[in-house]
Amino acid sequence: MTRQIYLDNAATTAVFPEVVDAMLPYFTEQYGNPSSLYAFGQDAKAAITDARARIAAHLGAQAQDIYFTSGGTESDNWALKATAEAYKDKGRHLVTSSIEHHAISHSAEWLEKQGFEVTYLPVDADGIIHPRDLAAALRPDTTLVSLIFANNEIGTVQPIGELAAVAHEHGALFHTDAVQAVAHVPIDVAELGIDMLSASAHKFHGPKGAGLLYIRKGLKTRSFLHGGAQERKRRASTENVPCLVGMARALDLCMERFDERVAHELGLRDHLIDRVLAEVEHVRLNGHRTLRLPNNANFSFEFVEGESLLLTLEQKGVLGSSGSACASGSLDPSHVLLAIGLPHEIAHGSLRLTIGEETTREDIDYTVEAIKDVVERLRRMSPLFEDFVHGKKALSAVK
Amino acid sequence: MTRQIYLDNAATTAVFPEVVDAMLPYFTEQYGNPSSLYAFGQDAKAAITDARARIAAHLGAQAQDIYFTSGGTESDNWALKATAEAYKDKGRHLVTSSIEHHAISHSAEWLEKQGFEVTYLPVDADGIIHPRDLAAALRPDTTLVSLIFANNEIGTVQPIGELAAVAHEHGALFHTDAVQAVAHVPIDVAELGIDMLSASAHKFHGPKGAGLLYIRKGLKTRSFLHGGAQERKRRASTENVPCLVGMARALDLCMERFDERVAHELGLRDHLIDRVLAEVEHVRLNGHRTLRLPNNANFSFEFVEGESLLLTLEQKGVLGSSGSACASGSLDPSHVLLAIGLPHEIAHGSLRLTIGEETTREDIDYTVEAIKDVVERLRRMSPLFEDFVHGKKALSAVK
Repeated sequence: MTRQIYLDNAATTAVFPEVVDAMLPYFTEQYGNPSSLYAFGQDAKAAITDARARIAAHLGAQAQDIYFTSGGTESDNWALKATAEAYKDKGRHLVTSSIEHHAISHSAEWLEKQGFEVTYLPVDADGIIHPRDLAAALRPDTTLVSLIFANNEIGTVQPIGELAAVAHEHGALFHTDAVQAVAHVPIDVAELGIDMLSASAHKFHGPKGAGLLYIRKGLKTRSFLHGGAQERKRRASTENVPCLVGMARALDLCMERFDERVAHELGLRDHLIDRVLAEVEHVRLNGHRTLRLPNNANFSFEFVEGESLLLTLEQKGVLGSSGSACASGSLDPSHVLLAIGLPHEIAHGSLRLTIGEETTREDIDYTVEAIKDVVERLRRMSPLFEDFVHGKKALSAVK
Repeated sequence: MTRQIYLDNAATTAVFPEVVDAMLPYFTEQYGNPSSLYAFGQDAKAAITDARARIAAHLGAQAQDIYFTSGGTESDNWALKATAEAYKDKGRHLVTSSIEHHAISHSAEWLEKQGFEVTYLPVDADGIIHPRDLAAALRPDTTLVSLIFANNEIGTVQPIGELAAVAHEHGALFHTDAVQAVAHVPIDVAELGIDMLSASAHKFHGPKGAGLLYIRKGLKTRSFLHGGAQERKRRASTENVPCLVGMARALDLCMERFDERVAHELGLRDHLIDRVLAEVEHVRLNGHRTLRLPNNANFSFEFVEGESLLLTLEQKGVLGSSGSACASGSLDPSHVLLAIGLPHEIAHGSLRLTIGEETTREDIDYTVEAIKDVVERLRRMSPLFEDFVHGKKALSAVK
């Protein structure tokens, strides 16, 4: 059997065994409903109260400002839709960017159908959102700015503190989708001036089905899920006790060894990027060279079709992706790659590799050799490449 | 240590050990993202496809009409809000009842704020919604009727097939919150004419954080969670693979032994009801005597305060509740008990006991003795009861 090198940690991560151990008692033994008055229910409530406090501490937040959700998508939907609704008497204009996760961009489009107006900020060739562009877009009727902390495809990390400050100067609230950033980049919501922040457990070795929305105290956003009085009456639904306990344990583990883990991933990421750029022709790195997630590399290979690249790499045991897993149902090229200026035919040939703590230098070297082999093989089959080699036709300037 | 008799299975249930076993591999081994193209992701997708087919079969549904959610609350929010939105050009009137779970009633109130009109049907003293009342409420601009299959507090099971037929005769769609009914009452969505149905795994020994919305093919309801292309593009968010696999396993187990389990619970329920009504004075059974969930008993004890009753019963190891767990944050008397005509002071003294498969006849007998003892003790402390005994004051006619 071929070895498997999992380089798709941005899509999802393996749950740490310690996390599963922490969760197990809450399925069959301490299974009480946290809303129940008896001690058996209150024990479950205590477990999530403890989880909330620990998670808050890792984010520089107050415990009571962490609201648990079913994941990043729900958090993003909540932040955008309920905040737009809560402040609609002040104004009906929102600002976001052209490189958001679909949980934000499709929520924004839904709001447009409800009569809100949305400005989508451009990004530069590295995927950076510029504070001056934000400042220019803000209006007296802008209530909310929502900008992704670190992009899920190209890994570019935004100047979040500066962007939040600009939003506040103009009287707007600031939300960030930090699903890819939490546990990978140091985050202190108070220091950065973040009003709302979305995160998802399964991106940092916690379970799928658990996430959170940080809502700064005093912010009057409404509920998104209506029903019971859970989460201080702001988010209805029986709390997913095992998964919330698991999320806290996962974040604890990630943050305990943050420095070593990030240094390890960063070293491998740079080794991967350096080798690919040096040893493969007609390739470009997507996203900023240094202002990027420590575990993310995203390349475009000219004359190579992305899906073939992925499938051939998989045959060699290397698991990567062409972009965000959530968008993989679509045949359209990535909106993120188009936003940084890639032409359609090159956006189609992209490869995202996202490293994990368990990835080794040997894995990366194996992966580079696999990429070289596969790219060469696919280019030999490409009539476009043949034209290029023989006719030296000028294709789009990619590099 | 006092024995613990858990009689709050309507609040939540213990996850079956077999369910946990089925979930475990999906945390640490088969943890791929179902949206990923490689086989490792597609294996996870196959697991949820299998879960979907098995769950559908238990409900008389087509597999592709089952959409997974994070639980009953999300399903209810989705059904109401997105359907109201999808059909708003046809009309802006909805019909529901006065005894819905808050996930429905608070979603309906939210819709009222968005310009929709909602009629809340009354119920009779047993908690039955009458088809004639529904017929009278329906209008040409009614797009959706949402009625609870079996009430979560008083256990009354509605004539769902008749109600759905009345809705359809008048051109309205029919949704039912079946969170308490699934696995307790036989349900065939096709036979009953249900267009949409909400269910939640943790009510039938599956994990918290997993639920479903059945949406009949051809129904054009919109998305509620916007983002990725999961669930046939209708419900965004990375699929909670372990919990969905667990939900299917739990329903399999519940349905495999449906007849024995229901007969067992029904026998114990009737034994409990018969003994309490015979051996305690000034008590009434809330909900219909026979058209009720096989595991539900709900009593009101005059001259007894509900919270004291619960806490004193807990000291004896009996865990019950005063009503729905989701509403326990509130000090208001249950809207369900008020809807069936109970005066405030009696609605406050109610006790819900919900039996499980593991409950024994000995547990029930112990519980009855505990109730008798506790009710007597609390009444001795009640000035109202003293007045009643001495002065024979006529209180509200309760029985």
